[in-house]
Amino acid sequence: MQLSEIRSPEDLRGLNDKELKTLAGEIRTEIIRTVARNGGHLASNLGVVEMTIALHRAFDCPRDRIVFDVGHQCYAHKMLTGRYEAFSTLRQLDGLCGFPRREESEYDAFDTGHASTAISAAAGLARARDLLGGDWHVAALVGDGALTGGMCYEALSDVGSRRTQLLLIINDNEMSISRNTGALAKQLTRLRLSRGWLGMKHSVAEGLLRVPGVGKGLHRAFQKVKNRLRNALVKDRFFTALGFRYFGPIDGHDIRAMEKTFRRLMEMQEPVAVHVVTKKGAGFAEAEEKPEKYHGVAPFVLDNGRTRNHSGPSAGASAGQHACALAEKDARVCAVTAAMTDSTGFGPFAKQFPDRLFDVGIAEEHAVTLAAGLAAGGMRPMAVIYESFMQRAFDQIAVDVCLQKLPVLFLMDRAGIGGEDGATHHGILGVSMLRAVPGLPVLAPRCPEELRGMMDWAFSQDGPAAIRYPRDLPEGLPACGGFSFGKWETLREGKDAAILASSAILKECMDAAALLDKAGVSASVINASTLRPLDVDMLRALHEKGVPVFTVEEHMRAGGFGEAVAAHCVRAGLTPPLGMLAIDAPFVPHGSRAGLLRRLKLDAEGIAETIRKAVKP
Amino acid sequence: MQLSEIRSPEDLRGLNDKELKTLAGEIRTEIIRTVARNGGHLASNLGVVEMTIALHRAFDCPRDRIVFDVGHQCYAHKMLTGRYEAFSTLRQLDGLCGFPRREESEYDAFDTGHASTAISAAAGLARARDLLGGDWHVAALVGDGALTGGMCYEALSDVGSRRTQLLLIINDNEMSISRNTGALAKQLTRLRLSRGWLGMKHSVAEGLLRVPGVGKGLHRAFQKVKNRLRNALVKDRFFTALGFRYFGPIDGHDIRAMEKTFRRLMEMQEPVAVHVVTKKGAGFAEAEEKPEKYHGVAPFVLDNGRTRNHSGPSAGASAGQHACALAEKDARVCAVTAAMTDSTGFGPFAKQFPDRLFDVGIAEEHAVTLAAGLAAGGMRPMAVIYESFMQRAFDQIAVDVCLQKLPVLFLMDRAGIGGEDGATHHGILGVSMLRAVPGLPVLAPRCPEELRGMMDWAFSQDGPAAIRYPRDLPEGLPACGGFSFGKWETLREGKDAAILASSAILKECMDAAALLDKAGVSASVINASTLRPLDVDMLRALHEKGVPVFTVEEHMRAGGFGEAVAAHCVRAGLTPPLGMLAIDAPFVPHGSRAGLLRRLKLDAEGIAETIRKAVKP
Repeated sequence: MQLSEIRSPEDLRGLNDKELKTLAGEIRTEIIRTVARNGGHLASNLGVVEMTIALHRAFDCPRDRIVFDVGHQCYAHKMLTGRYEAFSTLRQLDGLCGFPRREESEYDAFDTGHASTAISAAAGLARARDLLGGDWHVAALVGDGALTGGMCYEALSDVGSRRTQLLLIINDNEMSISRNTGALAKQLTRLRLSRGWLGMKHSVAEGLLRVPGVGKGLHRAFQKVKNRLRNALVKDRFFTALGFRYFGPIDGHDIRAMEKTFRRLMEMQEPVAVHVVTKKGAGFAEAEEKPEKYHGVAPFVLDNGRTRNHSGPSAGASAGQHACALAEKDARVCAVTAAMTDSTGFGPFAKQFPDRLFDVGIAEEHAVTLAAGLAAGGMRPMAVIYESFMQRAFDQIAVDVCLQKLPVLFLMDRAGIGGEDGATHHGILGVSMLRAVPGLPVLAPRCPEELRGMMDWAFSQDGPAAIRYPRDLPEGLPACGGFSFGKWETLREGKDAAILASSAILKECMDAAALLDKAGVSASVINASTLRPLDVDMLRALHEKGVPVFTVEEHMRAGGFGEAVAAHCVRAGLTPPLGMLAIDAPFVPHGSRAGLLRRLKLDAEGIAETIRKAVKP
Repeated sequence: MQLSEIRSPEDLRGLNDKELKTLAGEIRTEIIRTVARNGGHLASNLGVVEMTIALHRAFDCPRDRIVFDVGHQCYAHKMLTGRYEAFSTLRQLDGLCGFPRREESEYDAFDTGHASTAISAAAGLARARDLLGGDWHVAALVGDGALTGGMCYEALSDVGSRRTQLLLIINDNEMSISRNTGALAKQLTRLRLSRGWLGMKHSVAEGLLRVPGVGKGLHRAFQKVKNRLRNALVKDRFFTALGFRYFGPIDGHDIRAMEKTFRRLMEMQEPVAVHVVTKKGAGFAEAEEKPEKYHGVAPFVLDNGRTRNHSGPSAGASAGQHACALAEKDARVCAVTAAMTDSTGFGPFAKQFPDRLFDVGIAEEHAVTLAAGLAAGGMRPMAVIYESFMQRAFDQIAVDVCLQKLPVLFLMDRAGIGGEDGATHHGILGVSMLRAVPGLPVLAPRCPEELRGMMDWAFSQDGPAAIRYPRDLPEGLPACGGFSFGKWETLREGKDAAILASSAILKECMDAAALLDKAGVSASVINASTLRPLDVDMLRALHEKGVPVFTVEEHMRAGGFGEAVAAHCVRAGLTPPLGMLAIDAPFVPHGSRAGLLRRLKLDAEGIAETIRKAVKP
């Protein structure tokens, strides 16, 4: 039976060892081929192919429920649950989502996308089952990286103490998403395979110090969160202390062994944790060698693994580079990231200033309050976190940083429509989240120079600031003119309409203005780089000129930039915007950025059309 | 030397044992007297009097830094650091804050108010010290209740793995804030005092089952989070596994012993946890007996401990009562709280439906995703959490509940200006936080009947909803007319102005309308009980009547109700509000609700004045 013939997990039951092995190979090929074309999470998905087969042989889904933490390892699951044919549409608009989605399949028990939620969700499912008299099974599959998130501990404590029956599968692929922890993970794997771990901590750490070219960096890496946790795992202190029965480690590429173990453990009437060791990127040499490079990837060329280029300059790379320059001049400059050192462009900073870069793992809450503490102690920290993950630290931003007016600079990468990762990863709640917090300026650059200017400005102040930027800064705009706090920049002059926008979508606005020209509407485009406070002088000047104003943003309408402008105009007695273009839809799905903007009528054509209709009805 | 003569911790150094004991007594008396008059946190503050004296003898503050987790135990600290005379102003407008505030004193190392942040903040301070070449000491004082928060684990992992030198003082007062965990704590104390804990878990649990009148409830309570954690503590597995040196337990009322221990441990060049056992409420018989009652208290009459009455009906009590009625009819109805079962009015629910109330301890993130899991499993959960603490779970509300359209009902108590607890406890970011989340209706009741109607409506739907309500519902309004989703209620008719508001502040609006009458302005008052979506028909009708609209809210202006109304009017071509009364100030400080409303010009006089000026300039 071939992969293409598998209609449901039921079809897995009759396969023999050889067929299962062949099937795993087919799944791997399909994952690599599809990710090469569509982009996606490669290493994490390749690592759990056998585990997924074993899970679906042991569990009876959709009756039983499997919750995938983060969800960046659900590709094999999707292929085995009736979505093989649709798999080529992965991450494309109207295609399969790269994460589990209940609305996509009854086999997806819980939507994920952000880390460390699976144990909480599984606990809820299991308790619902117990309260409603069901007899199905619940499993949570959590990677070792996600276990650094505080939610996991909250959930483990709760589940362990209430003896909720569920099976926690720890997918120990020996790396978090970021490189720091990954380098050592390999070393540890070798050690683990050659002998037991117990009691080895000190000798290993000392040994590493003596390896030429390794020294302090790796020694410190050794002492990082995840390795602690691994020690805890092996010594079986950690999960047992929290009320779980612990089993493992078992081989995550041995289907039969896993199936047998899962079958036995899922029947236990108590919380059980089973520790499965997998190889991230298994079956794709390049990804096995550099799994962190293949965590979340853009489409790439198969034969040499080179990824196709992004469009536009990377905002993260610019931020990371400028952070280095600032840190060279000022010993107080430091950075905190949450398992995103490389993907936020702070790899070079980590290399140049290893003592001043704190990668705390997937732990955004702690990251922000750690930054607050650093600031209270006299440092000038940057908290470098994707905008959608920064949602995790809303309270800490407000209470721990802004209430105390501490000089923490929030660098919020991946702001705006993110594209293929979809609903959980777009940065379209950031403005509404931050605008209401007293004393927090919110900035959004359109070019590296402006971003640098914003960082310079923030460091010249003695309070918090937030800069939100997309992955790729827009290209083809007028030359950058630097940054002036609170002063918007006119990119293009026009007399019939004024378009106010910031950052990436300025490109669409400029193109829209060009289209409007053809329709006889002359539009100016204004770079509203300071989202908060608004440039009230500019708004008044536009009012006095009598030019109809349009706001455009890649953000939910409620609480966004457009509403801020409208409310200001109403209060100040200015003519309010004639149009406020923003996202009204429910959650924005996955798809190409271009496709999503088109659908949201936030592409050049959509913007031009809306403005033209309003100006020349 | 008397308490009144202590100008700084320096003055503690020369005191002998007898004097220290006398001092502790004086501090206690002062705490009880002041809390009786001003309200505040009694039990937690009484518990740490000796510990605070010992801390300030061992540490050299303000050079050394002590971070108080939650901060509800800083009264003795305030009195010993130059604020004895000001202590009578505790929690009053322009008086001392009930929590540490850096702007109040150089002895307050970090602002707190929400739980579980101290280790993160202390880590930041300690690393700043190390990077900047300082040689001062850092301590974090954390109660056992706050240790259930995931942030603590994130911080412990990080600190333990990087070997950051700090002293973690675990204040084990054997209760979280809520009663559930407290009942057993006492039992455990006796057991712990009479013999070791090690290996006792099963025999104790079995023993409890045999105690008449105890049975399953207590047995389950035994298995709760905190007790797990206590087991972990005693077995020294937990902190050691995370990289800390562990010492304890030591007596939290023996000043000399603590001082000696702190002095020794603070010099260790590694992360150290010391476990101190205190008695919550120590020195006040009533509070020792019922510490949960005296956690956060309103002013009370000293001789019998009776608290003075709140004004208006308790919204929480109404919600809890109606939740019971709903749960009686529907087996799917359940509740999740985060160490707030009693204070949110859900004590009766916990009693009547012990299997359907999940108090997860201070763990809001887990609480919300647990609720999502329960809903995905077919239950109808309520997540019952104070609005300001719900900020902790913003991402979970958006991603884990609303993205999946799961029917979780958020019951957000303590919305609006909270009063004496101050900046960290006001619920004035909730509307902006929730409005941008797709698919989440936001409601705010003015009376128990309306609150019940909202809950009924929410349970009649198949998706999420949020109801935010203040501690006390307003009195003296027209009789309740129930709730109709999306339809606002006219409480009072007038032709010169229409005031739109919801919940508690409707009282001020009605009084303002009465004042306006005298000034010749006839104002209607409209109960905008559905904050999202807006009642657009009502807004259009007001527009057509030509009545100037004013919005009033106890909420930050940015992203709030007024901006929502203004933006809608602008988009729909309606006359926008003539006034949007909201909070522009920086963070709102502590003080009486009445005093704060007056200062914010959101009391009846302020509202009337603003409207009168706008209508009859």
